[in-house]
Amino acid sequence: MHILITGAAGMIGRKLTEKLAKDGGLNGKAIDKLTLTDVVTPQAPSGFSGKVEARTDDLPAQGIAQQLIGQRPDVIFHLAGIVSGEAELDFEKGYRVNLEGMQHLLETIRKTGDGYKPKFIFTSSIAVFGAPFPAAGIPDDFALTPLTSYGTQKTMSEMLLADYNRRGFLDGVGIRLPTICVRPGKPNKAASGFFSGIIREPLAGHEAILPVAETVRHSHATPRSAVGFLLHATSLTREQLGARINLSMPSISCTVGEQIDSLRRIAGDKVASRIKHQPDELIMRIVDGWAQRIEAKRSRELGFKAETSFDEIVRTHIDDELGGKIAA
Amino acid sequence: MHILITGAAGMIGRKLTEKLAKDGGLNGKAIDKLTLTDVVTPQAPSGFSGKVEARTDDLPAQGIAQQLIGQRPDVIFHLAGIVSGEAELDFEKGYRVNLEGMQHLLETIRKTGDGYKPKFIFTSSIAVFGAPFPAAGIPDDFALTPLTSYGTQKTMSEMLLADYNRRGFLDGVGIRLPTICVRPGKPNKAASGFFSGIIREPLAGHEAILPVAETVRHSHATPRSAVGFLLHATSLTREQLGARINLSMPSISCTVGEQIDSLRRIAGDKVASRIKHQPDELIMRIVDGWAQRIEAKRSRELGFKAETSFDEIVRTHIDDELGGKIAA
Repeated sequence: MHILITGAAGMIGRKLTEKLAKDGGLNGKAIDKLTLTDVVTPQAPSGFSGKVEARTDDLPAQGIAQQLIGQRPDVIFHLAGIVSGEAELDFEKGYRVNLEGMQHLLETIRKTGDGYKPKFIFTSSIAVFGAPFPAAGIPDDFALTPLTSYGTQKTMSEMLLADYNRRGFLDGVGIRLPTICVRPGKPNKAASGFFSGIIREPLAGHEAILPVAETVRHSHATPRSAVGFLLHATSLTREQLGARINLSMPSISCTVGEQIDSLRRIAGDKVASRIKHQPDELIMRIVDGWAQRIEAKRSRELGFKAETSFDEIVRTHIDDELGGKIAA
Repeated sequence: MHILITGAAGMIGRKLTEKLAKDGGLNGKAIDKLTLTDVVTPQAPSGFSGKVEARTDDLPAQGIAQQLIGQRPDVIFHLAGIVSGEAELDFEKGYRVNLEGMQHLLETIRKTGDGYKPKFIFTSSIAVFGAPFPAAGIPDDFALTPLTSYGTQKTMSEMLLADYNRRGFLDGVGIRLPTICVRPGKPNKAASGFFSGIIREPLAGHEAILPVAETVRHSHATPRSAVGFLLHATSLTREQLGARINLSMPSISCTVGEQIDSLRRIAGDKVASRIKHQPDELIMRIVDGWAQRIEAKRSRELGFKAETSFDEIVRTHIDDELGGKIAA
């Protein structure tokens, strides 16, 4: 089996690559080859016996999709894209990378013909939804009303994927990721960064800034769950999925206060006291338009699994990123 | 005021042109010029004192959007597109005309800059929705899950329009038309054709084929209402519209049996007896996936008006198309 991963140098891309390399197979079939592509060269995974092709590509550039699809990968994980903030700042780049990149892949698959019909797993986002939301949570049949260019590009990509799937050019699944928490690595400037920062930084012995009130509610799943979503998606049949192949993933909905309570329970008062309140009007306004609670009934029924408490999210971070150790 | 109409040679385009020419103004401003474009040359309206430019254009072709937008029309009615059946048969043409045509117009507007910010009224369709539907009707916040390439292209165009509107490049409104009934002219091969045919043909003294059961329920508005929707959309402010600018229009939801009852009440038994039942499995299956009832709460609140009974739909057809005369 040959697997292509776009955006393979990103956080989820790297974790997905490592997991596939470690497992050595997918749905009972051995993986012979991994093709990894990104705008910076992805790292080859450790301990993988199959072939690895690590490429540096500008995906929407002329001829790139042909090179990638020409190898007829059996499974494609399309993770490449620029993030919300960048797509908002650079209108043209957002449509080029997030929409045209997708279009080139899909069109190249369609034109290959000759019975070629790969599994195509696309990472979408809860940014396809825009406020106002039902207080009880966003149901699976809620309107798509993105309030960012990024969300618009994800929605349009979902629509294309569903149409190419319906026409039989591929077997597609769109995975709407919730906010990934705890995100490893350095703090970044994403407006959502603090949701991870208030857990990750105190656990590492650093202070973290909390720019919003503790009553703010949001939806989270770990990087480990995100990788699990992508892998599980490849196991689903057309019959199980039906026509609605773009799915909101399960997540934990909790307030910032509940996040901090979990941190305190697991790591103690001293660690939790490293969170400093420093209100930021802009971040408060942005976060206000985000999904607080997502029902994700269908995806749960289809066997997608996320954490069951925010405590579990904190523990997963300590296990996966800190080798079980907390900075006292 | 300069008004551009794409798809001006189509049924709604012609009626919209005639209405604008007759009114001579829009929202209290005189119309100086009408630019009419389509793949076949649109007819100039009668009795209009302003300038008319009637053009034959392949809208998505290189440079055409620049020619049309270069004249900086104040209001754009973008009606051009290929219909559902054709978009399903010719995958590439559908995306080229229905999506790329829209993209070219929007991008040309964005790049014009210099304070240019037209009103942009886009005709979308209830084909953005796909079964299964709530029995009580499709609410305004229902998911967009098109089941045709046409519906996919309309949905993607809606998303683009909302993003360009949000970014301030234009003032946009997307008008999701229900099935237009009674459609004048010759019977066509559209799967929805019989909804109009069973009224139009008997009133003109001809037989009509009914390919589905009388229990089939569907949503209708007249051509006159459709033109009214498009005109009313130009009067709405950004404040009234908010972020959700793509609107399902009001319509009459009724069964085929109720349609026939209306015809019988208005035109008598002899006219109604010209309808011949001739079940068609394919049409029955297609129609089964269509929207039966659309709530359209927001559009009604915003002042969009359709007929209040199917009797009114039949009478409007007799007045507008038959000069008040029924073939006895």
